[in-house]
Amino acid sequence: MSARFAVTYRVRSDAASIAARAEAIAVEQSVEMPVAAIESEAVLRDIVGRVEDIADRGEGVFAVRIALATATIGDDAGQFLNMVFGNTSLHADVELEACEIPQNLAARLGGPRIGIPGLRARLGVQGRAFTGSALKPQGLDPEALAALAGRLADGGLDFIKDDHGLADQAYSPFAARVPACAAAIAAAAKRTGHPTRYIPSITGNLDQMRAQLRLVRDLGLDCAMVVPLLAGVANVQAIRAEFPDIALFAHPSFGGAARVAPELLLGQLMPLLGADAVIFPNHGGRFGYTPATCRRLADAARSAPVPALPVPAGGMTLARTPELLDFYGPDTMLLVGGNLLMARARIAEEAAAFARAVAQHPYAQDHDGH
Amino acid sequence: MSARFAVTYRVRSDAASIAARAEAIAVEQSVEMPVAAIESEAVLRDIVGRVEDIADRGEGVFAVRIALATATIGDDAGQFLNMVFGNTSLHADVELEACEIPQNLAARLGGPRIGIPGLRARLGVQGRAFTGSALKPQGLDPEALAALAGRLADGGLDFIKDDHGLADQAYSPFAARVPACAAAIAAAAKRTGHPTRYIPSITGNLDQMRAQLRLVRDLGLDCAMVVPLLAGVANVQAIRAEFPDIALFAHPSFGGAARVAPELLLGQLMPLLGADAVIFPNHGGRFGYTPATCRRLADAARSAPVPALPVPAGGMTLARTPELLDFYGPDTMLLVGGNLLMARARIAEEAAAFARAVAQHPYAQDHDGH
Repeated sequence: MSARFAVTYRVRSDAASIAARAEAIAVEQSVEMPVAAIESEAVLRDIVGRVEDIADRGEGVFAVRIALATATIGDDAGQFLNMVFGNTSLHADVELEACEIPQNLAARLGGPRIGIPGLRARLGVQGRAFTGSALKPQGLDPEALAALAGRLADGGLDFIKDDHGLADQAYSPFAARVPACAAAIAAAAKRTGHPTRYIPSITGNLDQMRAQLRLVRDLGLDCAMVVPLLAGVANVQAIRAEFPDIALFAHPSFGGAARVAPELLLGQLMPLLGADAVIFPNHGGRFGYTPATCRRLADAARSAPVPALPVPAGGMTLARTPELLDFYGPDTMLLVGGNLLMARARIAEEAAAFARAVAQHPYAQDHDGH
Repeated sequence: MSARFAVTYRVRSDAASIAARAEAIAVEQSVEMPVAAIESEAVLRDIVGRVEDIADRGEGVFAVRIALATATIGDDAGQFLNMVFGNTSLHADVELEACEIPQNLAARLGGPRIGIPGLRARLGVQGRAFTGSALKPQGLDPEALAALAGRLADGGLDFIKDDHGLADQAYSPFAARVPACAAAIAAAAKRTGHPTRYIPSITGNLDQMRAQLRLVRDLGLDCAMVVPLLAGVANVQAIRAEFPDIALFAHPSFGGAARVAPELLLGQLMPLLGADAVIFPNHGGRFGYTPATCRRLADAARSAPVPALPVPAGGMTLARTPELLDFYGPDTMLLVGGNLLMARARIAEEAAAFARAVAQHPYAQDHDGH
């Protein structure tokens, strides 16, 4: 018997059609041809997707559980997405809800190397949440971004990341912008005594990402952000293998997560391919995720073999710090971007207040077990 | 004044909220921070997205037209998607409907090199539609796939493509499978006198795709299929630049096109980054696209500077050949996969009947202008 793993789809259907619809999905995500035309017994036995369960969720929605063959995937994360939601992503009646990834498949795909324990060790931060902010707006030149980075770092934050809009634009080329921001943050870290980390955003094709990561490494930096759904997930696997000391932060851009359950796409799959930290839209911010979705997403990230760091973001405010720390506990990074920038001349002071609020928060006992 | 291009989003909203929602999208897809905190006059003038029009489409849907700065993109297709639908893809109330790409941006991103005219010249096919079929199911070994390829090519089809599920699996490694299928198709082409082309599927990270493409080129093949939304669009740009003689067929897998208008994502954007041919789900097949969507998608592909070939597929049947040729005209390829395979022992005869039907179809005069 060949190895299989289970994938659950959320399907809108009427009760009379769901059995046939489930079979059609099982075929679409495996052999993609009429089963009647398959002559090979081995393919019929080992490769064709198998409907394992259909559960009526009510209101015309069914959860369809399908067992797919692990052999169709190998160790390629792109092929993994192709097999679990390739053609089916084009069907408007289906959403991808869950994947049960067996340990041997997860190990082949990658997984975080550094994760929460590595980030805690590097920064000497224990028993509290991490703090972060973002460099924006795009359109500023390297000097202006570096000045902003220095002011944020003077507040003693743990991480300062590039906005995901910062790429290799003419007004702020990567090769000028990243050394300038790194130097400003290093100078601030010397002043504060806190080892604030800079997270540059890595873009372009695999060669361009590699060249950018070599510069990152040569600057003595040990973090980088990547957008897996634009970079191509197999390329994220490649840079994970080639730059083992760089902690990878996954950005959700182009995630179109309304078609794939966010806790799966971001919480489970980003760590699966090597993200050490996963940035996601927080509840109550600019995005519509519910608290329950955010909780499941964070729990999924922290369930990776090396726990990955959940990084709620997207319209966060300083005022919500206590509430969010109660919600996420210490194994998280709070990423406050625009709200800190609103302080303008008082950015360093506001950043320091943010850092203090996170350091002094009374974390509940039951969170310490993470 | 800096260069801008217009993007149209379809937004579900009530009339009282749409103006603010439109502004929020313009900010999200440009500076992603409170505009009030931006000090730079140049950023406010040249970078912040600008709402140009809001049209009430009725039933709580609005078309929001936003002008984005071309300078934010450079020549990176990944950054292009990041800027037009990066974070906004995570908002369930918004779909990306249209992009108006200025000529200079389109030229920087790439575009088809070979397209319809190049494919017509290579195959000596004029005045009729192209024919194609697919090698499946995955799970067969290289010998079985090659035998199938030979039988399909004996029918005199124009193109035989890998199923997009064929990757570099242990049961059928790329390096064994592709030479075997290429040899079988070449032998059949010698028998039939028709220069049937093989289209292998290229997968993995950029290095792996390059290695596969070198083998493709060394085998004397001149076509390849790629899944841009899994490969990473910037990597497609890279292989377009490095393999100028390979005609690139874009596969829609993982397109999640319900959140991006299919005519935009597949019809317009795939050619924009270099696809010479665009495979898409045909109306009336296994996918839910309407005839109007398919028409617009095909028209968009054929509107590229070098026209790209629209390839309707997905549950096509031989019986629909006349109807579909009337619908798409001669500048198309009909891709019939599973329905041909149903013929089992009579595959070559059925493929020949398909080829004849396409060759003998009376194409309407008004289609000949393409």
